[in-house]
Amino acid sequence: MLIKVGLIGAGTVGSGVIDIYLKNKDVIKEKCGTDIKLSIVCDKNISKIEYLKDFNIEITDNFKDVLNKNVDIVVELIGGITVAKEIITSALEKRKHVVTANKYLLAEYGEYIFKLAQDKNACIGFEASVGGGIPIIKALKQGLVANNILNIEGILNGTVNFILSKMEENKTFEEALKIAQNLGYAEKEPDFDINGIDSAHKIIILTALAYGKWIKMDNVLVQGISDILPLDIQIANELGYKIKLIAKSKKEDGKLGVRVCPTMVPKSNILSSISNAYNAILVEGDFVGPTLYYGLGAGKNPTASAVWSDICYIAQKLYSGAGKLYDFNNFNSNIPVKHKYDFESEFYIRILAEDKVGVLYQISRIFADYNISIKMVFQKDIKMENSLVPILIFTHEANYQNVIQASQEINNFDFVKGKVFVCPVE
Amino acid sequence: MLIKVGLIGAGTVGSGVIDIYLKNKDVIKEKCGTDIKLSIVCDKNISKIEYLKDFNIEITDNFKDVLNKNVDIVVELIGGITVAKEIITSALEKRKHVVTANKYLLAEYGEYIFKLAQDKNACIGFEASVGGGIPIIKALKQGLVANNILNIEGILNGTVNFILSKMEENKTFEEALKIAQNLGYAEKEPDFDINGIDSAHKIIILTALAYGKWIKMDNVLVQGISDILPLDIQIANELGYKIKLIAKSKKEDGKLGVRVCPTMVPKSNILSSISNAYNAILVEGDFVGPTLYYGLGAGKNPTASAVWSDICYIAQKLYSGAGKLYDFNNFNSNIPVKHKYDFESEFYIRILAEDKVGVLYQISRIFADYNISIKMVFQKDIKMENSLVPILIFTHEANYQNVIQASQEINNFDFVKGKVFVCPVE
Repeated sequence: MLIKVGLIGAGTVGSGVIDIYLKNKDVIKEKCGTDIKLSIVCDKNISKIEYLKDFNIEITDNFKDVLNKNVDIVVELIGGITVAKEIITSALEKRKHVVTANKYLLAEYGEYIFKLAQDKNACIGFEASVGGGIPIIKALKQGLVANNILNIEGILNGTVNFILSKMEENKTFEEALKIAQNLGYAEKEPDFDINGIDSAHKIIILTALAYGKWIKMDNVLVQGISDILPLDIQIANELGYKIKLIAKSKKEDGKLGVRVCPTMVPKSNILSSISNAYNAILVEGDFVGPTLYYGLGAGKNPTASAVWSDICYIAQKLYSGAGKLYDFNNFNSNIPVKHKYDFESEFYIRILAEDKVGVLYQISRIFADYNISIKMVFQKDIKMENSLVPILIFTHEANYQNVIQASQEINNFDFVKGKVFVCPVE
Repeated sequence: MLIKVGLIGAGTVGSGVIDIYLKNKDVIKEKCGTDIKLSIVCDKNISKIEYLKDFNIEITDNFKDVLNKNVDIVVELIGGITVAKEIITSALEKRKHVVTANKYLLAEYGEYIFKLAQDKNACIGFEASVGGGIPIIKALKQGLVANNILNIEGILNGTVNFILSKMEENKTFEEALKIAQNLGYAEKEPDFDINGIDSAHKIIILTALAYGKWIKMDNVLVQGISDILPLDIQIANELGYKIKLIAKSKKEDGKLGVRVCPTMVPKSNILSSISNAYNAILVEGDFVGPTLYYGLGAGKNPTASAVWSDICYIAQKLYSGAGKLYDFNNFNSNIPVKHKYDFESEFYIRILAEDKVGVLYQISRIFADYNISIKMVFQKDIKMENSLVPILIFTHEANYQNVIQASQEINNFDFVKGKVFVCPVE
């Protein structure tokens, strides 16, 4: 049986998918047991894929050629939510199976797309949408299927983690970003990464799998890393923590809370040891306990490896002669979702203030007003720009909503400059 | 569609399988999409499972009752290689699907059993045989399917890792073993664990999946942990290492080398941070790069979680209407296997000797004879029992065969007491 694949998008990940095909076609056949052929590749820049003709692969710059061709599986790797959505829905309408790495599209339209796939008895592979080459989707769908998932906590963006690792070497955010861009770890317009939006898309997908509910972006607290100062990283380090951009999805009191924000992670937590462009996802189930999945979370080859794992999975289903091809998913959970500000944690709060008498008194009053109990407060003996001094506060467990409101009031003081920085301490 | 399951063996893992069924039956149905019923349970000690009658589950103390009953899936959890082999082969002969946690049986008879399953078009689930609840089997079979696997390196035995963690707290091996036994982490007869045999069974299974070849136990270097002294752990720590029982399976120069032995792992390697009863497996593929899987490697609930992941996987296959049910595996690789002593590494060698002149001279001569270049040698300023002094040697890269022969010659010196301890340094 020959399974035919059409690829749309030969950018970074797409070219990795082609490379794997050209290099490991035999490995794939040996492990998968069925013949898979990359029949057609589409890219806007057709000259880039001209060489594929030598390998008996058809090329085109019109994605409709792929959809109209007799392929079993359409691989969408163009990203974004306009054309990609058209491609995926058209493919499913034609009862073709789909493989995609498009976390943005799934986070926005996952509910609709999976419903359509179910109606059309088609399969959607999306292993590459979260965690690059790490097989986290299959771990959640299959490996931990018998568990109530209690908590998911992960470092889901390699670019951000690379920048934070560089900041541990005393670089500013801007310097670290530049290094990441020079090394190709960060795109020229890295907003989705550094603002936490990419991580939010990914945790929405994991949440749907783990708890059976597609939640809206509005329900996710999203805070990026651009406000972190080297000072914060240094304080964290001195007190036994690292600052990581943690995406978290937790069931608590029968409700779901989902957030992405810089978080102080104790060095005893394995997530603190994940550095550079690596991703790691900690998943806790009621029977399996804590499990962790780690690997390169982005980049051409690891992500292409995940794309191929989906292609093979679907190919094996087809080869098995299965009638029901849609991969069962239950997204009908009625678990309530918490307001994104509604969670308790200890917090780290950094305030840059003018160095004058009474500052701490006035700040403390605000915290008291909001019922926030302070565990530790200290002034670091360093002068910042404009002779500002950093006031560093660690709270006892407090409500995030209160902490944010208190921070806003503190921001209004004349003697406070810049934005108050807040992050949970785990 | 109702999938019926028969369980043979209600010991530690088996009772976990029952617990998951009774507690998470609804979760499983929601995530799996099909009804699964635990129809019959067999245990020698039938009084232990008497209570299952209240849940409409048949009980028996004769495993043949399970095989003769109209079940789709037989779960074998009695362990060992005699009755368990009879159960599994009989089940396959009857074209029933099999789920097992029996690493010993698979390591010994895997080739035969998978061949039989293929002939009978039946599925074998064995996720629980390696890494407890960690979905490492599915990661290798599916997640990394498009990769040439280059290296597998893991901590595969929770009992051993627990003992080594305790030894880091300055306990002797015997004291640490006793603690493990008191806490239920080690069995009363823990030989398979501490001698490395259990880890060897597991790395044989991973090797078969990764490289397509079932290798014989004779081809695996197996060294346990009972010769490790607190001194070795302390030296490792001072020099930036931890001693872990590492199971390793590596493709090098087109050949396969497989070994289980105490290994000095640098603290920068994530495996060094895996402590207590946890397992972790590092798998490196040519496209995906390094990936790591971590979790509780043993115990009732995590292992039972893995058993259920297999039951669900097979249930979904049956539900899909697939005709080909055997899960494709290719175990026909003709990759040559290295002799188990044939590998190069740096080594740590600890010799306990009488404190007299010329000792180091005579030892050095042996190393020179065997072409082993010494990187560092020192005497730790502590007196052992019988006034012996430890001579600690770190070599440059050397051949294991040579190191072992040199050690044997050194063992023959009158002034050397006890056994020379050798372990690779990574």
